[in-house]
Amino acid sequence: MKIDIVENVLQYNKDEADKNRKIFKKNNILVFNLLSSPGAGKTSLIIKTIEKIGKRKKIGVIEGDISSTHDSKKIKKYINDIVQINTGGTCHLNASMVAKAIGKLKLEELDIIFIENVGNLICPVGFDLGEDFKIVISSVTEGDDKPVKYPPIFIKSNLVVLNKIDMLAVSDFKSIFFYKKVKELNRSAKIIKLSCMNGKGLNEWIDWIIDKC
Amino acid sequence: MKIDIVENVLQYNKDEADKNRKIFKKNNILVFNLLSSPGAGKTSLIIKTIEKIGKRKKIGVIEGDISSTHDSKKIKKYINDIVQINTGGTCHLNASMVAKAIGKLKLEELDIIFIENVGNLICPVGFDLGEDFKIVISSVTEGDDKPVKYPPIFIKSNLVVLNKIDMLAVSDFKSIFFYKKVKELNRSAKIIKLSCMNGKGLNEWIDWIIDKC
Repeated sequence: MKIDIVENVLQYNKDEADKNRKIFKKNNILVFNLLSSPGAGKTSLIIKTIEKIGKRKKIGVIEGDISSTHDSKKIKKYINDIVQINTGGTCHLNASMVAKAIGKLKLEELDIIFIENVGNLICPVGFDLGEDFKIVISSVTEGDDKPVKYPPIFIKSNLVVLNKIDMLAVSDFKSIFFYKKVKELNRSAKIIKLSCMNGKGLNEWIDWIIDKC
Repeated sequence: MKIDIVENVLQYNKDEADKNRKIFKKNNILVFNLLSSPGAGKTSLIIKTIEKIGKRKKIGVIEGDISSTHDSKKIKKYINDIVQINTGGTCHLNASMVAKAIGKLKLEELDIIFIENVGNLICPVGFDLGEDFKIVISSVTEGDDKPVKYPPIFIKSNLVVLNKIDMLAVSDFKSIFFYKKVKELNRSAKIIKLSCMNGKGLNEWIDWIIDKC
């Protein structure tokens, strides 16, 4: 009985995600679902991306938080096409929340939407939002063991971004261990290492994004 | 109807937590529930604490993870009284899981139990485990905005530990902002800043723990 309920919830979410996907496709918008721990650098990466390609590509953002508009305000300095979702305590976005947010964006004008999920390395992974790509952002300062301790998000993501590589010199992060563990979970995932602080690696990230457009 | 179900779950958890609490009291054990984002330093803080007072106080650990025994293995080098809970995907510990773990510890020999919750700044906060104190560990490298973005965990915690202060010089973390936001949410919470890497501030942490014993 309990399993039935869970299945219904996930099936309902899947149906809503498929509706979102159709809307994105119809408007020719590429959608990235950004997943990470709190503070790994989702907002910073969005801002750096807008700075780099915001004139070439029209970018919209759907910003997920349990409460506050803290990150939205930061991004709002760069673009107008941003919608805040406050989940009111729920630990992940779902497709219905995103469906409501879509209605507030000028879809016909957009090329790309970044969905910044709630900062959480566990719960968001089970909920399809209708995105084209799931991207997990892990950061050097969180430690090299995140793939070992939180496998599902690394298994399900199309791209692994390793942020804060400017901190490699002052941490005990072992890149070889991290890469090995990611590859054990997800042989096809590409890994891009970068620093939103000093800009290293951002061009490879931008190339990856542009290549998908 | 939906609210009723949620209330039942939380009431059931509360009842189980009360049973745990009675067992801890009967055995004169002080219990700390450690909460944080992935990679903020829960395991490191436990190990540093064992190094500092492990001979004076008999410490046990209940280790929560969605999967893997990665952190348990690290702690096992220092103590034998450790039980791993793998939640199998669930994003927080609950009182029933802890009840099962308690049965595997030699309670009559222990003074302190650290429960290392699943790395998650949202979900664990609603689940009383029967602990005496909730401690949230936030780290400099996650950024100074965590209290703004994840208020409940800061509201419910008795102590806020700010870890990785060795990184202050190479980050844009504003301590005054962090302190102000914590205090707005939780006037009575003490804040201890420390570094498990270079040991600064650990004595204040140890004093706080010993003072509770």
